[in-house]
Amino acid sequence: MRTLATFGANDAGGIDRVAFSDANIEALDWTAELLADAGFTTEIDLAGNLIARRAGTDAELLPLMFGSHIDSVPGGGNYDGQVGSMGAVEAATVLAAAGHITRHPLEIAIFSNEEGGKTGSRALAGEVEAFELDLLTASGVTIGEGLRRLGGDPDRLGEARREMGSLAAFLELHIEQGAVLDVDGIDIGVVEGIVGIMRWNVTVDGVTNHAGTTPMDRRSDAMVGAARFVDLVHRTARGTSGRQVATVGRLIAEPGVPNVIPGRVTLTLEIRDLSMDGIERLFEAIRARAERIAAGSGTTFSFDRFYTSRAAPTDERIQESVATAAAELGLSARRMPSGAGHDAQSIALLAPVGMIFVPSVRGISHAPDEHTAPSDVTNGANVLLRTLLAIDAAGF
Amino acid sequence: MRTLATFGANDAGGIDRVAFSDANIEALDWTAELLADAGFTTEIDLAGNLIARRAGTDAELLPLMFGSHIDSVPGGGNYDGQVGSMGAVEAATVLAAAGHITRHPLEIAIFSNEEGGKTGSRALAGEVEAFELDLLTASGVTIGEGLRRLGGDPDRLGEARREMGSLAAFLELHIEQGAVLDVDGIDIGVVEGIVGIMRWNVTVDGVTNHAGTTPMDRRSDAMVGAARFVDLVHRTARGTSGRQVATVGRLIAEPGVPNVIPGRVTLTLEIRDLSMDGIERLFEAIRARAERIAAGSGTTFSFDRFYTSRAAPTDERIQESVATAAAELGLSARRMPSGAGHDAQSIALLAPVGMIFVPSVRGISHAPDEHTAPSDVTNGANVLLRTLLAIDAAGF
Repeated sequence: MRTLATFGANDAGGIDRVAFSDANIEALDWTAELLADAGFTTEIDLAGNLIARRAGTDAELLPLMFGSHIDSVPGGGNYDGQVGSMGAVEAATVLAAAGHITRHPLEIAIFSNEEGGKTGSRALAGEVEAFELDLLTASGVTIGEGLRRLGGDPDRLGEARREMGSLAAFLELHIEQGAVLDVDGIDIGVVEGIVGIMRWNVTVDGVTNHAGTTPMDRRSDAMVGAARFVDLVHRTARGTSGRQVATVGRLIAEPGVPNVIPGRVTLTLEIRDLSMDGIERLFEAIRARAERIAAGSGTTFSFDRFYTSRAAPTDERIQESVATAAAELGLSARRMPSGAGHDAQSIALLAPVGMIFVPSVRGISHAPDEHTAPSDVTNGANVLLRTLLAIDAAGF
Repeated sequence: MRTLATFGANDAGGIDRVAFSDANIEALDWTAELLADAGFTTEIDLAGNLIARRAGTDAELLPLMFGSHIDSVPGGGNYDGQVGSMGAVEAATVLAAAGHITRHPLEIAIFSNEEGGKTGSRALAGEVEAFELDLLTASGVTIGEGLRRLGGDPDRLGEARREMGSLAAFLELHIEQGAVLDVDGIDIGVVEGIVGIMRWNVTVDGVTNHAGTTPMDRRSDAMVGAARFVDLVHRTARGTSGRQVATVGRLIAEPGVPNVIPGRVTLTLEIRDLSMDGIERLFEAIRARAERIAAGSGTTFSFDRFYTSRAAPTDERIQESVATAAAELGLSARRMPSGAGHDAQSIALLAPVGMIFVPSVRGISHAPDEHTAPSDVTNGANVLLRTLLAIDAAGF
């Protein structure tokens, strides 16, 4: 991990290893060498994923895939994606050193452009749309051009698709990117799934008026309506059983000057939950209560959903294997949702998936201060290897 | 008023007669002619005010001043300032036609640059600061250059100052610019004073965090703290006896994206009241309760006052004279604060002042749709004239 951190290292102690950059390519070449040293054959697939393979003892079994990504956000840290990637390399190296051949063929995937839209893993699921190839990325080239830089072929991206049911399972080790494990002193997160996300633009309409000449009881103040809505969102999400989260991250008041009562406020509402039904139920509860706010503040609310990401539950048997592996290693573990998106989410469309979380110090991520203790990185890799062996031994 | 509306008329049915524009200068020349026709001598003073004078029968008495302004905001309407200015011209004309000479000398003032900072009336009170002369105005010239265009002299502005106690009284007729009289069907507003204003920048600090990986009970969400504060401001101002108003007109959340819990929200708080003590008491009540919001939401609040405008109470005897004049004319009247600023506010530093409001249809102002019914304009001018005569007869 210390060597990997040199590819794209920046002065802030973090990395600029955005997808398709020279640093990204050099890091992939270096990773491929490590995997070749562990007896894997490596290639870059049509979607720019580094894929490393080793045969198992039973040619009838489907491949068991594991891995993560090594690209970063601009100004990222040294753990996001990298713990899971180096954890996979470590597992491969340990297996090679032990001379252990698994029953299943093994496939390690270092996915392309995770941070810029999960291009590599979504291509395996056949989910990348043509327009995406023209999107400019942080590296300065389009996704299409970038895939070509890595050694992929955007013109033949459809051929990168894997069949549903063509993999025995997929496992991903990753940092939590939240503070739950760190704050509560838990070693391992057994991920129950990657949450679904819905986002709405909410418009609160009132009446723009002079802040001096309009008495308090004659106002239709969109800011007041919006404020009560923000509080409602927080209280409803917090007061409902379950681990759903709801956030108002953006709020714009018009005209937005100190001496005018705002006539319109637009804000965003985001809800995440492991269950899409749960998201919709929470939204309906919020919307129903917003009617009362509207009546009480002389405003009207309208909702426009502009983004949906489907929830991806992990496989319950794999959850159990992860929990067992942690217990065997004497590590504390907790079942929890992943609030952030991951490559495992794409692969969940093809195969049973599992995810292992290790603590992020203070929950910081996507920043140079991102940190996971060396012992936690080791714990994660050990749990990954044990879980792999358990799945290999089971009927996947 | 129809002729005045032609100076700077725009396609929207309103006017662009910003201070110091050609339309402003032409309208002043035209107004000066009307006043000369009514037997007044006219001049432009050093502060660009059109001043018209007529001697009274008692040379020992101080001048009785009345008037308003004829400049507009960009894209303004045909009533703000104009009703009071033409009301003054009408009173002068009626006195001339009746051959009535008042005891007090009369002075009519059409103040310069009301909309751009009440320059003319504030110069009479000695309140214009040197830096203001360099401020660019909507006309494209600075205030200093503009005063020169009108016929004033920015280099000698200090000489425009009047002594405290050098006027017997000042009266201003104006449209309400709010909807209270219109909605309640009241003919005349007896203005109790021009409210004071204080404005604060309020900063709510929480902790920026990932909206997916941070559970609801582990958030320090600055948006939630700010939302509860906005609601608190509204409820506290409304629930306190009196006619104070409090407004949050601007709110900016950082980083302001749908998937990040805002770590900082900055917003403006404005409080207006006839009593400066009332403003401070309301602010302290809000600030004390904000402490509870801070504790409950894991945020901190800080307050920075950036603007103060002193309240200007009107003279109680003049209020009584206005109310009596309305009653004699069979008009309904209500005592009320002026929530907006006016030239009378500046002159209140020199002399007892009074203001007469007439209804603004739907409270619309500073827009082409601004309207006051012809009968209300007439009512206002009649109340102005009667009040003038009553003050002239009394011991001012």
